Amino acid sequence: MARDSRYDVLFEPVRIGPVTAPNRFYQVPHASGMTNALPRVRAAFRETKAEGGWGVVCTGACSIDETSDDAPLPFATLWDRNDIHAHALTTEAAHRHGALAGVELWHGGASVMNRSSRLPPLSPSGIPWMATHVGFMGNLRPRTMDRSDIRAVLRWQAEGARKARTAGFDIVYVYAGMGYLGYEFLLPEYNHRTDEYGGPIENRVRFVREMLEVTRDAVGKDCGVALRVSLEELRGRPGRNQASEAHELVALLSDHADLFDVKMDSSPTDCSPSRFSGEGSHEPVIDFVKTLTDKPVVGVGRFTSPDMMVSQIRRGVLDFIGGARPSIADPFLPNKIRDGRIEEIRECIGCNICISSWHDGVPVRCTQNPTAGEEWRRGWHPERVTPAARPGKVLVVGGGPAGLECALTSARQGHEVTIVDAGTSWGGRLTFEKTLPGLAAWNRVADYRLGRLNDIPNVALYLDSRLGVDDIVEFAPDHLVLATGARWTRSLYSSMEIPVGTLEREKVYTPDDIAAGRLPEGPTLVFDFDNYYYGGVLTEHLASRGIEVAYVTPAGQASAWTIMTNELPLVHRALARRNIPVTTLHLLKDFDGETATLAHLFTGEETRMACRSVLIVGLRAPRTDLQEAIAARRGEIDAAGIRSLVTIGDALAPGAIAHAVHSGHLAARELGRSGGRAYYLRDTPITDREPAFDRAEAAE
Amino acid sequence: MARDSRYDVLFEPVRIGPVTAPNRFYQVPHASGMTNALPRVRAAFRETKAEGGWGVVCTGACSIDETSDDAPLPFATLWDRNDIHAHALTTEAAHRHGALAGVELWHGGASVMNRSSRLPPLSPSGIPWMATHVGFMGNLRPRTMDRSDIRAVLRWQAEGARKARTAGFDIVYVYAGMGYLGYEFLLPEYNHRTDEYGGPIENRVRFVREMLEVTRDAVGKDCGVALRVSLEELRGRPGRNQASEAHELVALLSDHADLFDVKMDSSPTDCSPSRFSGEGSHEPVIDFVKTLTDKPVVGVGRFTSPDMMVSQIRRGVLDFIGGARPSIADPFLPNKIRDGRIEEIRECIGCNICISSWHDGVPVRCTQNPTAGEEWRRGWHPERVTPAARPGKVLVVGGGPAGLECALTSARQGHEVTIVDAGTSWGGRLTFEKTLPGLAAWNRVADYRLGRLNDIPNVALYLDSRLGVDDIVEFAPDHLVLATGARWTRSLYSSMEIPVGTLEREKVYTPDDIAAGRLPEGPTLVFDFDNYYYGGVLTEHLASRGIEVAYVTPAGQASAWTIMTNELPLVHRALARRNIPVTTLHLLKDFDGETATLAHLFTGEETRMACRSVLIVGLRAPRTDLQEAIAARRGEIDAAGIRSLVTIGDALAPGAIAHAVHSGHLAARELGRSGGRAYYLRDTPITDREPAFDRAEAAE
Repeated sequence: MARDSRYDVLFEPVRIGPVTAPNRFYQVPHASGMTNALPRVRAAFRETKAEGGWGVVCTGACSIDETSDDAPLPFATLWDRNDIHAHALTTEAAHRHGALAGVELWHGGASVMNRSSRLPPLSPSGIPWMATHVGFMGNLRPRTMDRSDIRAVLRWQAEGARKARTAGFDIVYVYAGMGYLGYEFLLPEYNHRTDEYGGPIENRVRFVREMLEVTRDAVGKDCGVALRVSLEELRGRPGRNQASEAHELVALLSDHADLFDVKMDSSPTDCSPSRFSGEGSHEPVIDFVKTLTDKPVVGVGRFTSPDMMVSQIRRGVLDFIGGARPSIADPFLPNKIRDGRIEEIRECIGCNICISSWHDGVPVRCTQNPTAGEEWRRGWHPERVTPAARPGKVLVVGGGPAGLECALTSARQGHEVTIVDAGTSWGGRLTFEKTLPGLAAWNRVADYRLGRLNDIPNVALYLDSRLGVDDIVEFAPDHLVLATGARWTRSLYSSMEIPVGTLEREKVYTPDDIAAGRLPEGPTLVFDFDNYYYGGVLTEHLASRGIEVAYVTPAGQASAWTIMTNELPLVHRALARRNIPVTTLHLLKDFDGETATLAHLFTGEETRMACRSVLIVGLRAPRTDLQEAIAARRGEIDAAGIRSLVTIGDALAPGAIAHAVHSGHLAARELGRSGGRAYYLRDTPITDREPAFDRAEAAE
Repeated sequence: MARDSRYDVLFEPVRIGPVTAPNRFYQVPHASGMTNALPRVRAAFRETKAEGGWGVVCTGACSIDETSDDAPLPFATLWDRNDIHAHALTTEAAHRHGALAGVELWHGGASVMNRSSRLPPLSPSGIPWMATHVGFMGNLRPRTMDRSDIRAVLRWQAEGARKARTAGFDIVYVYAGMGYLGYEFLLPEYNHRTDEYGGPIENRVRFVREMLEVTRDAVGKDCGVALRVSLEELRGRPGRNQASEAHELVALLSDHADLFDVKMDSSPTDCSPSRFSGEGSHEPVIDFVKTLTDKPVVGVGRFTSPDMMVSQIRRGVLDFIGGARPSIADPFLPNKIRDGRIEEIRECIGCNICISSWHDGVPVRCTQNPTAGEEWRRGWHPERVTPAARPGKVLVVGGGPAGLECALTSARQGHEVTIVDAGTSWGGRLTFEKTLPGLAAWNRVADYRLGRLNDIPNVALYLDSRLGVDDIVEFAPDHLVLATGARWTRSLYSSMEIPVGTLEREKVYTPDDIAAGRLPEGPTLVFDFDNYYYGGVLTEHLASRGIEVAYVTPAGQASAWTIMTNELPLVHRALARRNIPVTTLHLLKDFDGETATLAHLFTGEETRMACRSVLIVGLRAPRTDLQEAIAARRGEIDAAGIRSLVTIGDALAPGAIAHAVHSGHLAARELGRSGGRAYYLRDTPITDREPAFDRAEAAE
């Protein structure tokens, strides 16, 4: 299909200082979790985006010195020659597809804890970042930089820029955002200096300006110099000559950068979850930048709609459509727009499992794109599959995320696929969850797959079909895939993590009851030890239905794990807006129909709470009825010629939707392969000398 | 000095199946945080213990398969040939000193989240471990193992054992403790199986017994086979033929293992902090083992007293004195006993900074031993220093942990050292902190160093000496070291992590006030956003002085960071015992002398609390008076011939005591070296082929 001409503007080349991006799709720096320890995994992950049409592909944060050590959070390094060689795999991969490669040189300042290097963190004035957020806390406060420290950081930046050029990068960053060192110089709360680096904004930008200058001196005319800067807090501060200090900063630095990469101040606002904010949420903060500079501007906003992208360009908000999460969910987003295949875009759902991966300290995972991070180690491409050597008849039982993904991927391989579901709509758990407050966008997981399945001729879809063993034997597929999902249980745990049976009482509900429309009588106590989004959002749901509800959890916060997905503060605010009391650090011990008995997680002290019903959001267990029925009649299954039987998704191991989609994809890729589990390739760092040599040598 | 003959028993050789340990000092498996990514760092760390006299030196957990992936927590692997070569560095290092090398082969079962491998975790019955502890939570539940899974794990264990033998290990473990796979088969709450692996204890031990059998078959007569097992929960369960199920287990497995390595069930009880328990705390749980087996038994208990060690042997509790923490704090503990140098033992203080390092996902750090983890990358030996090329006069100002360590290490290098302190006793912050509930053992940091300093002739110590610039110029040292510590501030922070000034009001106290004996009037509100031990223990202290006190923190738990040091539940219990109310998730906004205003961290909702005084345990800032005075008269300092001036410890960057000691040690090692900061060597993995090759090849 031909592209709509109104999208042509997205495919114009744009100059960034001495280099030119082939189009306006710009994969801004974002964490991959891969680090220099997995150089081939990383290069393949970034290459797939270049192949998919992103005109610029950047690294994540790349440390310029051992004083910027974010361990255990993943970060890349550009310290020595091994590092140069490791990054060269990525730049070569980007160049193969005509993309520019950018590197986000980075010094974390007071926001890193140097847990591995054991060097005191650096800061303008000894003020720690994230002092109260214990999840990311360390026990070492930063020291105050003297002039020689400032000179040292400028030297490391220059050395880093030279190494970056040697590694083949086209764009080199100065990073002054998100609490990192450059940003700490910008904010007076962190910069109490009385020398020429502190005081009025003209002084507070000095360090960043010098970082830009040394970078340009280092790379000459070989690379563009980009400034990445957070503008949220500064925008709220009146300036003396301009509307705000953010305005002053852009005006003061306009001559020093070839590109402005503008963003918010913290991960929760910069990378906000779809549950609480929509596409383009940065615009009110960054909309002014282009009025003060003629340098190109890139920004993000979880853009997946080409019309929204064009609007950003036409209205003069951005020159480049920045992408981080959408580029993970669909590396081929630009090419799909280019080729008029908009309906094929696998839109980011904004669940932030990707950012949770970084917080978890592991390589990136994506709910929508199961191939993210698996490009090299498993050889998975997001758009291409290897045709099946022996196409067969595949029956997938269960149309949730795992089943839909398995059906789609096996159909693409050329199998004859039949997918059935016992319910009246596709999507499994999503059919209810998409109706909960803020979760509508999550249904893109089902929508994308259904759209593609409906476009493929070798697929048959049947709803309202509860299959038994007789049906399966009669159908006689070559490959049988069970994706029957999981059910929520009434299990409880002790404070010592020992299961203590189930609370099988009247008026004790599970999320499955709520999904089935069985609403509890209020007041209802929601006891959440799942600790991800579901307990919190179900509590909101009950309150929205007029039920008086209280939320109790053994964790320290409501929906505690959502700290990983940038949702946690917003969950608390959502509950507070509905006046829902939150009790933390308590276990549910018992419920007699009128009173719930709670016990403090650590002290065991008991308290009572009056309520008429209890909803336990705790453990899930696979739905195994069909698995067991099949096991009992395995002989008939074999006699029917069913060559392979595999269980996937929640029916195998209950997990987040990301796990289910990955499980379904894996099963399809491995369909009919004999010989047990597929291992993946294990990446190894690039080493050309052992042990690592002197740093000075690498700066050459 | 000659050894006391009553310690001779500790130096007897002991057989472990086909191999013989040279003495009874056994460094049990413990986490190093180093992993196969830092093979030289790891080998040097373990080698130092072998050199110091530990007769057996073991690895930490070493995964036998990708389904046992603890990322981001550090773990070793024995999956392929690169891994074999990486571990061989460690076994060769142990053998150089006559020690045996042991490897803790490990499958984490349901307790790992496989965040990196993305494979569903394995478990006997699909029951997750640590379901409610969100700090270690993932979102993927384990799947239930079928018979082919059990066969696969047995095969991986056998392959791992063969690789271990190839790598040169003398002792190969089967691990059935701490929530890992073997242990999950032992406990009926996690093992609901109806086949021959579930039900009575005879069946529940089957999997572990088969693991022992395949291990022995794999290693033949080349290695001893050790069983590491947790006995805490099982000891509490009556057996049918023996006093408890723990007794039955030992009796059932006695013929199958060459060694019993017995331990507690969870990190907080196994590796309990000195604040809440003393030396030898495991004995009541494991004391029976030797009555049921003739195989040697090793156990731990933070043993640092040789008399306690001899008592354990003589009374038939243990055959080997297991050491983990004490072997980190003093790798030369055995040799010091052997040589009659007991007063030179650097005793573990039980602060658990070592275990926090593992929880932090980084290499081990130790408060007492700053050289731990730095043996290879910085070339630091715990007992030896390089004599100073140009011995000089060193003046250390400040006798806290950093100053004492710097003085001791520079004196050992041959410098003429003078150390002064303005106070009336040595130890800095410890002079008060050691008097707080449970912290007496922490003063070993000062005691050890003072003891050594008093034994060295080239050291002068002066208390009650507050030096000014004039004094320093007059003294005219070659090297001036400032270790003047930090003071606590009255700073507050907003929920957005922005500092919002200080609460300079009457009746607002800091920990420095309490240390100086200025006790607040009750009721006192303790506002803790330091979040480590100090806020909690000061609250206990005030209550013990009869002051009514309430504890408030923005974190989700009291002393929230102590989850890292295994203290958190015990802190809550200690506060509960004194009836101290704990308010979490709240910031202190204001205090007018009668009422404190609190605001919810996330929602901002304000509440009031009546109190007469407030104690803020928040930020520390360096004491810089002397630094500033010196800077103002720098010319005189230079003219006095002072060649180097360095600031260390809290006076540079306030941190935990571990950071101060490390800072003091680093300064001494670098004393007078020109040319800025000392970099360390960067370790690289062992790779002999790229990318990593097929696993099957490695099992050969």
